[in-house]
Amino acid sequence: MKLNDKGLLIVLSGPSGVGKSTVRKALFNKKGHDLVYSISMTTRTPRAGEVDGVDYYFVDKPTFEKRIKEGKFLEWAEFVGNYYGTPKDKVEEQLSKGHEVVLEIEVAGALQVRNQMPDAVFIFIVPPGKQALYARLKIRDTEPDSIIQERIEKADREFLLAHKYDYIVVNDDVNNAADRIMNIIRAEHAKTERTIHQYMKMLGE
Amino acid sequence: MKLNDKGLLIVLSGPSGVGKSTVRKALFNKKGHDLVYSISMTTRTPRAGEVDGVDYYFVDKPTFEKRIKEGKFLEWAEFVGNYYGTPKDKVEEQLSKGHEVVLEIEVAGALQVRNQMPDAVFIFIVPPGKQALYARLKIRDTEPDSIIQERIEKADREFLLAHKYDYIVVNDDVNNAADRIMNIIRAEHAKTERTIHQYMKMLGE
Repeated sequence: MKLNDKGLLIVLSGPSGVGKSTVRKALFNKKGHDLVYSISMTTRTPRAGEVDGVDYYFVDKPTFEKRIKEGKFLEWAEFVGNYYGTPKDKVEEQLSKGHEVVLEIEVAGALQVRNQMPDAVFIFIVPPGKQALYARLKIRDTEPDSIIQERIEKADREFLLAHKYDYIVVNDDVNNAADRIMNIIRAEHAKTERTIHQYMKMLGE
Repeated sequence: MKLNDKGLLIVLSGPSGVGKSTVRKALFNKKGHDLVYSISMTTRTPRAGEVDGVDYYFVDKPTFEKRIKEGKFLEWAEFVGNYYGTPKDKVEEQLSKGHEVVLEIEVAGALQVRNQMPDAVFIFIVPPGKQALYARLKIRDTEPDSIIQERIEKADREFLLAHKYDYIVVNDDVNNAADRIMNIIRAEHAKTERTIHQYMKMLGE
């Protein structure tokens, strides 16, 4: 018996290179959940094989800019000349159906969501140590040192934003990290502020 | 890897008759936990087979009253001429060893603990419906109607204190309720206010 039927908005974030998408995939591979992944909207051209409404919602720039003005994004950013954003209406539609909606986004985007959706659950994924992350940033990069250095500096700034989140989850092992996130989602459903309304209704019956 | 080594104080409470001790026992029967049960102190005479320091800490009235004055209880109450209380020092000793300490107490006691231990996790166990609880209060009682009526009125008052707790857990099924509590304990360990200190230390290394 559930005292909270509404879905939760789960925001997964963390410093660049921490393995957010790997953790998110491990989370979705767990059994017995009702998670849906929030599909982003973008103005970039679809790549071969990408499907509108599956990989992204593909729109043109004027449409995207109109939506920004109308406040229709939970967060958005411009990256190499293209817009990327999380459509608010799509997220709210899924939440009202009782699904848990998972956003896997950059730190800057997560902080934008905080302002619009204070009820969301903010999870900061961290590496088991700073050096572990630096190593990852170097390994996966075949680019010049200056770019790597820039990424490290970005990660260093992002590291310091952990206190803006509700939970800190260590990605020491992808499967453990996914388990911890699943525990958090289940526990959040039992939180008094999410259950008291239905509980009081139950008492009245 | 744990970012919080300190044990948590878990306060299990709920209206009389909801099955707190059954849920607590199911919780302790789960695997992979580090829970310890807080042993109460009392002035009542040990019953046959009861062991001091196992079932209760048995003390005399002057000792108990001295401890009350010294603020050495997380909560205490008088019941049919005897004192019952939770010794603060014993709880803190277990917490500092990294154990999760579970208190299973009446609603009035839980609210006393709240003032002294704001970091504790307060869980309110509720029946799947009011009538379910009334039925339980009647079935287990061979006493006169007036006493049953008194208990129902007490439960009715206790029902309304759910908002003082962090979580509301439905005891629709003892095993499910215990699972929910275990999820809560695990999730609480990842809370930012409990992990940020060690996280910042990790960053400095």
